[in-house]
Amino acid sequence: MDTTKKTIILFSGDFNKVMAALIIANGAAAMGDDVTIFCTFWGLNILRKPVPGSTGGKTTLQTMFGKMMPKGTKRLGLSKMNFAGAGAPMMRKATKDAGGMSLEELFASAREQGVKFVACTLSMDILGFKAEDLIDGVEFEGVAAYLAEADEANVNLFI
Amino acid sequence: MDTTKKTIILFSGDFNKVMAALIIANGAAAMGDDVTIFCTFWGLNILRKPVPGSTGGKTTLQTMFGKMMPKGTKRLGLSKMNFAGAGAPMMRKATKDAGGMSLEELFASAREQGVKFVACTLSMDILGFKAEDLIDGVEFEGVAAYLAEADEANVNLFI
Amino acid sequence: MDTTKKTIILFSGDFNKVMAALIIANGAAAMGDDVTIFCTFWGLNILRKPVPGSTGGKTTLQTMFGKMMPKGTKRLGLSKMNFAGAGAPMMRKATKDAGGMSLEELFASAREQGVKFVACTLSMDILGFKAEDLIDGVEFEGVAAYLAEADEANVNLFI
Repeated sequence: MDTTKKTIILFSGDFNKVMAALIIANGAAAMGDDVTIFCTFWGLNILRKPVPGSTGGKTTLQTMFGKMMPKGTKRLGLSKMNFAGAGAPMMRKATKDAGGMSLEELFASAREQGVKFVACTLSMDILGFKAEDLIDGVEFEGVAAYLAEADEANVNLFI
Repeated sequence: MDTTKKTIILFSGDFNKVMAALIIANGAAAMGDDVTIFCTFWGLNILRKPVPGSTGGKTTLQTMFGKMMPKGTKRLGLSKMNFAGAGAPMMRKATKDAGGMSLEELFASAREQGVKFVACTLSMDILGFKAEDLIDGVEFEGVAAYLAEADEANVNLFI
Repeated sequence: MDTTKKTIILFSGDFNKVMAALIIANGAAAMGDDVTIFCTFWGLNILRKPVPGSTGGKTTLQTMFGKMMPKGTKRLGLSKMNFAGAGAPMMRKATKDAGGMSLEELFASAREQGVKFVACTLSMDILGFKAEDLIDGVEFEGVAAYLAEADEANVNLFI
């Protein structure tokens, strides 16, 4: 296996786990690797547009999911020490104080470096997210596409 | 490495993480891969029979673990938006509305396709689960067996 | 790929996840593998000295992180059934009753067997942990060092 391809399944929408995934993706891309991040379930949140989402053709449950789940990286919370929502702003400030890149900068950098972001279509169907609810430049795939990429990669993480 | 074997350590008993693990396992098995799921700690819950478990030779703590931890896929909760237990039924309904397979169908399909389910014996000893508490057809192994399989696989995930 | 190197990113500081990581690391080391555990975010807790940490040059937030986050393996909590802190002592007792190694014994054994523990420098900068706050014998690296090791390994887990 002489490839240096990497895949990450981003299942979590927790602030720090998303940060970890994006730091790994940016690092690998900077070293010349192909990197694909498959966003599934709560990981889809980072791909959501920060505007009111689509409303047509949704069940009541899907409308509720759409309203309750965070839209985009700016709304993510912490899995630990969330302090009723105050944790993420504190972690943001600490990251800035330390001279680290913000979540938004890490995300933009990953996209600029060619990291491929894939939205899991089954998760989208369940949660009621439409293609128009997600940012541009995202691909839409299922588990078979993930497995095909993972078979070509030498590092495959579930985050 | 010309194998296409996959291993998953299923540590979590969260509804959506179990769903993700089973979707990956089913997808890989459908593509002809050998797949092994090592169930450890909360992941053991999916292997538990839905009947009252064994009672002999257990400590008070183990009896308590046995009563408090979910028995089988039907009792799993959500890690996010659990809503005091209402989250999993909502996620089940949304999955059904989207035409997706239920957790029970995914589990049955994985077993039919030959996905191997292994119960971590150390976790069983700690939690007080006996072989008779688990469904039939499960294998019982420790970390050495996991590592031997992971060495032969090209995708190894911890979920 | 004829290496049997293993890498684990230990992101979590949950008692049972740390136990799982250390059991895998000990098992692999016993089989002759090189094992590296990259401790990041909450995973850094296992490397912290159980004494009051450094105070100089910290922001208010970093001082708060330092006080609130557990110092060392003895203070870790459970992700499930934590029972306001009673869960970890119960899990410790159940492990001892089952004849399993304690978290401290697993950690000591891993170090004796040559498992390499690396502290993620970016996480340290964000959380305000200094080298003197961590136990001796730890290495300090960033994502590039992780990726270089992962490229040489055949099993790479994110825990």
